[in-house]
Amino acid sequence: MSQSISKTTIEDIARALNITAATVSRALHNHPAIKEATKKIVRETAEKLNYRPNRIASSLRLGRSYIIGVIIPSAEISFFGSVIHGIEKVANINGYNVLIYQSNELYESEKKGVQTFLQSQVDGVLASISKETINLDHYSELKRRGIPLVLFDRASDSLGVSSVVVNDYRGAFDATRHLIEQGCRRIAHIGGQQHVNIFNQRLKGYIDALNVHNIALDDDLIVYGKVSIESGRECMNRLLAGTNVPDGVFAVEDFTALGAMQAIKSAGKKMPEEIALIGFANEAFGEYLTPSLSTVNQQTVVMGEEAAKLFFDIQRKGHSPNGQPQKLVLEPALICRQSSKRFGP
Amino acid sequence: MSQSISKTTIEDIARALNITAATVSRALHNHPAIKEATKKIVRETAEKLNYRPNRIASSLRLGRSYIIGVIIPSAEISFFGSVIHGIEKVANINGYNVLIYQSNELYESEKKGVQTFLQSQVDGVLASISKETINLDHYSELKRRGIPLVLFDRASDSLGVSSVVVNDYRGAFDATRHLIEQGCRRIAHIGGQQHVNIFNQRLKGYIDALNVHNIALDDDLIVYGKVSIESGRECMNRLLAGTNVPDGVFAVEDFTALGAMQAIKSAGKKMPEEIALIGFANEAFGEYLTPSLSTVNQQTVVMGEEAAKLFFDIQRKGHSPNGQPQKLVLEPALICRQSSKRFGP
Repeated sequence: MSQSISKTTIEDIARALNITAATVSRALHNHPAIKEATKKIVRETAEKLNYRPNRIASSLRLGRSYIIGVIIPSAEISFFGSVIHGIEKVANINGYNVLIYQSNELYESEKKGVQTFLQSQVDGVLASISKETINLDHYSELKRRGIPLVLFDRASDSLGVSSVVVNDYRGAFDATRHLIEQGCRRIAHIGGQQHVNIFNQRLKGYIDALNVHNIALDDDLIVYGKVSIESGRECMNRLLAGTNVPDGVFAVEDFTALGAMQAIKSAGKKMPEEIALIGFANEAFGEYLTPSLSTVNQQTVVMGEEAAKLFFDIQRKGHSPNGQPQKLVLEPALICRQSSKRFGP
Repeated sequence: MSQSISKTTIEDIARALNITAATVSRALHNHPAIKEATKKIVRETAEKLNYRPNRIASSLRLGRSYIIGVIIPSAEISFFGSVIHGIEKVANINGYNVLIYQSNELYESEKKGVQTFLQSQVDGVLASISKETINLDHYSELKRRGIPLVLFDRASDSLGVSSVVVNDYRGAFDATRHLIEQGCRRIAHIGGQQHVNIFNQRLKGYIDALNVHNIALDDDLIVYGKVSIESGRECMNRLLAGTNVPDGVFAVEDFTALGAMQAIKSAGKKMPEEIALIGFANEAFGEYLTPSLSTVNQQTVVMGEEAAKLFFDIQRKGHSPNGQPQKLVLEPALICRQSSKRFGP
């Protein structure tokens, strides 16, 4: 932000088009009150006058807004609530405020979220990608305008931006190994949508743990759900109705695990004696269930703190198109509770 | 918004001071990039030129932002997540986007939230007041600037703005009567902070239900907590250690009830046989507990929908300083689960 490559200002564009500077700024930020035709000519003129997107983002606004926009898939998942606490902690120290937008796991809604934050003139966006999202152009738009973007948890390497993720593969590997150590030999996996990178990594961790421990993979023991309580219940009922009923289940996340737990209890199976169960993400409700739910802790507050720190790093150093994006990988930790613990202290 | 009382525009102020319209707009919106001296003279000039705050809010921005700002005490309480779904539903139908700010139940943070939304130029604010907040001047500031404010759940009549609340008194009355009907006679109440109106209403509902059913009030059976799991546990342990151990407990909300449930189980008391328990708010975790938690359902989605509708009503009709604010009171519904149900189907 400290270097200016071009000396062109917002006023130059305004003068060239005989409109106000405010209109130019709004047009460049895609404000709904500005006509499409105006936006087009403003953008063309900005390009002609050799505008740099990062200058547009930083100086056209006549200063910083001191707002960070955070896009989360759902405010009802305590995982994200916890990440936001980490973000707020670091943001507040730096005099920043945090606004939250929830995509409700919908691509169109996520796109609107990016647009809304552009309009609110946030200084940066931290985002976790929705389950429905495949096309990432809306995030590229942020990059194009020089607004720092940092992804957390549900990230994508293809965008070339910095990110903070958990080692999902390692968490899944450890969870599966834990079930093996508890004596399980027919271990099922209830997976999530496989185009979502973290869910795919958890599948791989599960498969590799079985391989390392010489347990043959049984395709019938892998079912794919939709990452919800209902879906967890359905998937578990399918496993219970199969020919090879599992004696251990690794669910892709805790809501799925909760549904599975309900199905196991309804079927009158003892937990963990007959079927041991472990989830992922350490959602708040897990420790209050009976039996309490084993899970994988993802260092959520640290994730939020590190994501916010990455934003401030980028802001301090300015944008470097050839600079390497940073990828921070946090190590998860097993939390063994009653749902999977057959032996030991 | 349809009537213009004064013909003065942002450009008039800008011309009078020989600064840009954007600077005037930012100064009036208290943008941090604008010097205090500039803000002062802009405000003085706006007043001299007979500016109307609602004109400032609506037209100085050169159009609407199509953003509603929502201030919630905490994103980790599913009650608020659910209200936001209702708000988003109505907002999206009207082409609006929703940004969320969480106050973390802190007064200073809530003040910053209002400031952040002013800066983001939201068209309206829907808010639920934090537990720590007593002074409401920051909300008056919104009114002064002609930005519609609607309160939900934790409202205050003193602000003179429209609100959507639940009939907390009725909910508490019904919850207490339910315990009486289940045979409880020594009914305790674990209350919340009494300066928070909804918590005080719940205390009154509890007291009146006892009175109506000719059960003498025992001061020792009323304890005040801090509305958290830990606090619920502590309060319940105090009740268990008392001389008049309760056979029924009405907790002010579900997190408090969860703490109380843990304490009752730790003490080896049977639920609901020895101590029946009911909470308030129908938090998501309640139905998954063992025993499942009885509670009071507050029509959260409807609350969000109605709050958003009130905002759009105000926006359509424009501000009328002498117009009456609307107060919508939703009727709650008992949800009887295992923690309190001794008899019946």
